Amino acid sequence: METSIKHILKEQRSYKVAGSLWLEFEGERFFGPGRSELLQLIDELGSLSQAAKRMGMSYKKAWEMVTALNTQAAQPLVLLQTGGKKGGGATITTEAKQLIAYHQQLRARFQAFLSHETDSLGVK
Amino acid sequence: METSIKHILKEQRSYKVAGSLWLEFEGERFFGPGRSELLQLIDELGSLSQAAKRMGMSYKKAWEMVTALNTQAAQPLVLLQTGGKKGGGATITTEAKQLIAYHQQLRARFQAFLSHETDSLGVK
Repeated sequence: METSIKHILKEQRSYKVAGSLWLEFEGERFFGPGRSELLQLIDELGSLSQAAKRMGMSYKKAWEMVTALNTQAAQPLVLLQTGGKKGGGATITTEAKQLIAYHQQLRARFQAFLSHETDSLGVK
Repeated sequence: METSIKHILKEQRSYKVAGSLWLEFEGERFFGPGRSELLQLIDELGSLSQAAKRMGMSYKKAWEMVTALNTQAAQPLVLLQTGGKKGGGATITTEAKQLIAYHQQLRARFQAFLSHETDSLGVK
């Protein structure tokens, strides 16, 4: 039996069921909105330092995220070219693009879950 | 079309879809695991200060949580009796018990969502 809490909520006020979602590998954070954004920016800008800058993140932090991603996945997700004046470029692999696509679909399913639960509250 | 990422994940290693969930009122945190635990401890111990202590939380913080809960809901959730040597007792209302029950059911549905998504990863 589902318990209704409609009578506990103020009428004509905004309530919603909210949440966050991420993928874990061996109990550690593996993939979520932040890493997805980083991969997409690397793909767009072709550079880890530029992607980090765009996210307001230190190069060190971005490099650590990329290293973690490549370690936690069975396939490399980011390829770093060393050397050159700008320290080399960065590209993402086909597997990274598949992971981004999966993550977007997962988030859409989660949003549907949250919307359904919010609607079930019976207030708007 | 659902994108599979099974080939991106290491075999025989632990991956899972994890998340957190809460209720919002007007864009602010309204109810989640912490407040649910506080209400249950108040119900068990009959005292806000004892409940706060059990949670390793200051009395001030617990009092603010209770005040927020009572303000955000249409019905009082916690009743505080002032006065007396120990500063009075605290009880929770029927509505608070309904909110706890609803929250447990909501979390069960969320756990089912997460388990289903984790199973869909195709690794174990």
